[in-house]
Amino acid sequence: MQRTSFARQQCPVARSLDCVGEWWSIVILRDAFHGLSRFEEFQESLGISSNMLSRRLKALVKSGLLQRRAYQQRPTRYAYLLTPRGRDFLPVILALLAWGNRHLATEGIAVEVRDRLTGQLLDPIVVDRGTLRHLTTATISLAAGPAAGPGVRARMARVASHRRDVRLPAGPGNRALRLPKRAKH
Amino acid sequence: MQRTSFARQQCPVARSLDCVGEWWSIVILRDAFHGLSRFEEFQESLGISSNMLSRRLKALVKSGLLQRRAYQQRPTRYAYLLTPRGRDFLPVILALLAWGNRHLATEGIAVEVRDRLTGQLLDPIVVDRGTLRHLTTATISLAAGPAAGPGVRARMARVASHRRDVRLPAGPGNRALRLPKRAKH
Repeated sequence: MQRTSFARQQCPVARSLDCVGEWWSIVILRDAFHGLSRFEEFQESLGISSNMLSRRLKALVKSGLLQRRAYQQRPTRYAYLLTPRGRDFLPVILALLAWGNRHLATEGIAVEVRDRLTGQLLDPIVVDRGTLRHLTTATISLAAGPAAGPGVRARMARVASHRRDVRLPAGPGNRALRLPKRAKH
Repeated sequence: MQRTSFARQQCPVARSLDCVGEWWSIVILRDAFHGLSRFEEFQESLGISSNMLSRRLKALVKSGLLQRRAYQQRPTRYAYLLTPRGRDFLPVILALLAWGNRHLATEGIAVEVRDRLTGQLLDPIVVDRGTLRHLTTATISLAAGPAAGPGVRARMARVASHRRDVRLPAGPGNRALRLPKRAKH
């Protein structure tokens, strides 16, 4: 349970991780993107305990990624469906899938992304919405936004200083250039 | 520690999660994309215990996302640098960041993605590399690849059956259409 650790961070990456909850939640979302919606379906697919699955589904409903809807009365049974916020999580799943296929599929590709209508094989990459330029470590940087608090601004400043520091040639003399410790945030 | 749970799964999403390790590892990678590389820098930025940070850095080196390089002798000090595999993880970070900014930045945007040279604000989306078409739940589906084992194929078949099932009008009569339990994989 790393949830509480990230709760107060302003960084959107940490917040997203905090909102989703944990590894299991991402695999549940993957199955929801596949089209599964019922408790038994998730359990069958994941081989996960009822308790754990129940906790994760409740958390995903609470954080607004899934919505619960009764599909049967007497006894009432619920389907768990992706909300617009949940559907919008697809890029994270696709990025994880593409990375896994590229770096970890030692015996070949087990799951691939295809066009729903034509069946054409797709290769997910991240681009800028406006220019469609491919975003890589060479072309982008992370910057403080308009609502950045002192914590985020301090990290950005620290990063800028460290970058200058890193560019200096290595040597014992450079130790003095290391920044003094700052308060944690 | 959910690591072992996903280790034997063939799904590339589960494998990626297994390879990265846990939430903290993703935040360490985020800081590495910022340009941080030294133990003290990560610790300062994350406010994480030495033990935990040491474990996570070792795991990220072992799984090939970071490499350790001595930047100073007597005492030896190491920098942790992104490998090509690590740099290729950027799309996951950008997808998490974009989702967090869209859905969780209640007080405004704290961290944004900018062009490294021009400073232009960027909006990361996932498209197909060949056609540059935006990939959404409406346009894609996940399919079994050439190396899919019986486990993945069974899940895909189950998903296809469930989809047909879900399209039927709700009603008590439909209970008989639910699929029998299959062996977990």
